[in-house]
Parts: sequence; structure tokens; C-alpha cells
Amino acid sequence: MRKLSLPEIAESRLRPEAALEAERFPIIALLDDIRSLHNVGAMFRTADAVRLQEMILCGFTGTPPRKEIDKTALGASESVPWRYEKSAGEAVAQLKKRGVRIIALEHTAESRPHWDQKVEFPACLVVGNEVFGVNEEVLALADEAIEIPMFGVKHSLNVSVAFGIAIYELMRQYEASNFAKK
Amino acid sequence: MRKLSLPEIAESRLRPEAALEAERFPIIALLDDIRSLHNVGAMFRTADAVRLQEMILCGFTGTPPRKEIDKTALGASESVPWRYEKSAGEAVAQLKKRGVRIIALEHTAESRPHWDQKVEFPACLVVGNEVFGVNEEVLALADEAIEIPMFGVKHSLNVSVAFGIAIYELMRQYEASNFAKK
Repeated sequence: MRKLSLPEIAESRLRPEAALEAERFPIIALLDDIRSLHNVGAMFRTADAVRLQEMILCGFTGTPPRKEIDKTALGASESVPWRYEKSAGEAVAQLKKRGVRIIALEHTAESRPHWDQKVEFPACLVVGNEVFGVNEEVLALADEAIEIPMFGVKHSLNVSVAFGIAIYELMRQYEASNFAKK
Repeated sequence: MRKLSLPEIAESRLRPEAALEAERFPIIALLDDIRSLHNVGAMFRTADAVRLQEMILCGFTGTPPRKEIDKTALGASESVPWRYEKSAGEAVAQLKKRGVRIIALEHTAESRPHWDQKVEFPACLVVGNEVFGVNEEVLALADEAIEIPMFGVKHSLNVSVAFGIAIYELMRQYEASNFAKK
């Protein structure tokens, strides 16, 4: 198999100057009380890859520009629309009024495996603090809760890895449903 | 929705003392020339979560015990069987003799989206260096190449995030095929 060169890969990517005007997928991400700026940066990099509609940064989640965010985002915070909202609960309530489905990534009594949850779009994936998870106020507003099935010893995945897995499952379903419509 | 408490979550997890004797899924991961120990640790944490058969660390990939690995692995290097093999090419050749399918995570002229590639088990997911990817010698031995579809500006995802997405797609397919058999 022939590896693609960097220029070949670049050719199939969105041009930076077109990023903020490009059509975006009907997926939003809300990050609440994320402690680690490296995690925020890694999630920006993933958000760029799936061309999210927007990132909403809430609570004490750090916001660009920050050196530690850019270390893992590698510039992706410039190609993803984002805004800061102090209260995740209020941000979620506004999204719900616009008809956005709220999907919390959290271990709850009703959570379904991410690969079994049929997602309706537009959807917003909510992730919470690295230790405490999605806060109760936001959870009460969620339409669904999903969890990444865990078969090992540890309680949880790194939040930016879990975010990547969950958001790509949303994309997989979005692409599949769009393909079905064609 | 009621959030699960840590003891409730712990109840559904593998007990640490049972980890190395437990039945494991027929998925292997091979990490070649991974530069960042934090990335190695994060991949161990994910490997624990999917109860991989084993991790094979090759080339200049750092091996436990290392403080920087454990910072992100959070102890997961103790619940995942692993070994070091200097040459990824030789390790892959041995796996192929045992009938393991080799799946390279790499942008190649023939790569398919990870969500479209039907996986046969046992399978080994190969990831390569953060900048240079899977090396040509190993790529020549791969049965399949998969890539995570990218819709944004950046060339690639963080390797530990990409690893998480790809390995959970393997698990999703494994679970689906096992469920179909029941």
C-alpha cells in the first residue's frame, strides 16, 4: 500500500481560509468544567476533524488563546467556531429551545452504549469534568445519556479520547443516514 | 437521569486481581515508534477499556514502568498484557503466521474509512509514529489500511484519540458479530 504524501493529504482537507464559511455538520459539542487545557486542545483538534457546528465552552473550561490549548489543538481552535457561556445549564436550555437533542456522555442508570443509541440531529454532545463528569443540572436536561462500554479495570477513559469515540459514532450515524437518503 | 456512583461503576468493572486471567477479546494493538510517553499511557488506558489481548510495543516506543506513561495510563499498564519487540516488521510477520489480520491505521491510496472496513478477527491494529505514521515495511505486510475520515483543516488526529476511535470501531463490530451469533 502506498502511503499518501502530506501534499496529497492536504489536498483532500478543507482550506484554512474556507474553514469558518464551510457548511458544517449538525453536531455541537459542549464542554463543561474541563480542568485540563491539554484536553480542551485535543477536543478542538477532534472538533475540527468532524467539522462541528460549534464548540460551547462552559464553567471553568479554559478558552483560546492559551499556549497549553494550542499545544494539543495545533491551531484547530482557529478553524472551529466556538463561544464561551458561563452556565452550561442555560446554554443547554437555549439549545433545546432550538430543537437540538442533548446527549450527555455519562455513566447514569439509563445510559446506553454509544454504539446502540440512535441519534437524531441536530445533536449536542455534552462532556463534563474529568473527575466529576456531567453536572446534575445539565444531566436533568439531557434527552439521552450514552456511555462508552468499558470491559477493563479502570472506571473511565481519558475525556478527550472518550469525546473522540463518541463524536465519531455520531458522525458515523450522520453519514449513514445521509447516505441512505441519497 | 441518575448518575452512577463510583462504587456502582466499580461493580461493573473487572477486578484488578482478575485482569490478567480474564478472557480477552481477539484484538491486538501494535504501537511502533511512538514518541510521546503520554500517548503510550493514554493508549494503555484505552487498551484496558477494551480488554485487548495484548499490546506490542516496538521500535523506540517507551515501555512501562515510566512515570510519564503512568500519568496518563493511571495504572492501566498493569492490567493489559504487553511485550516489547524491537522490530515491528518481525512482530507483524509472526502475527500473520498465527492468522491474525493486520490493520494499519494510515492514510494510503487504498485506505477505507474505519467505519466501512469489515474487520475479521483475530485482528491487530497497527499505529505508527505521531509524524511519520506506520512505516513502509509494516505497511507492505498489512492486510488492510483504515483511516478516520477527516472533514476539517488539520491533517490528522492525536494518535491516542485516533487509536481510541479505531479500536472502539473494532469492538463495535466484534460485539455486533458476536451478538448476531447468539
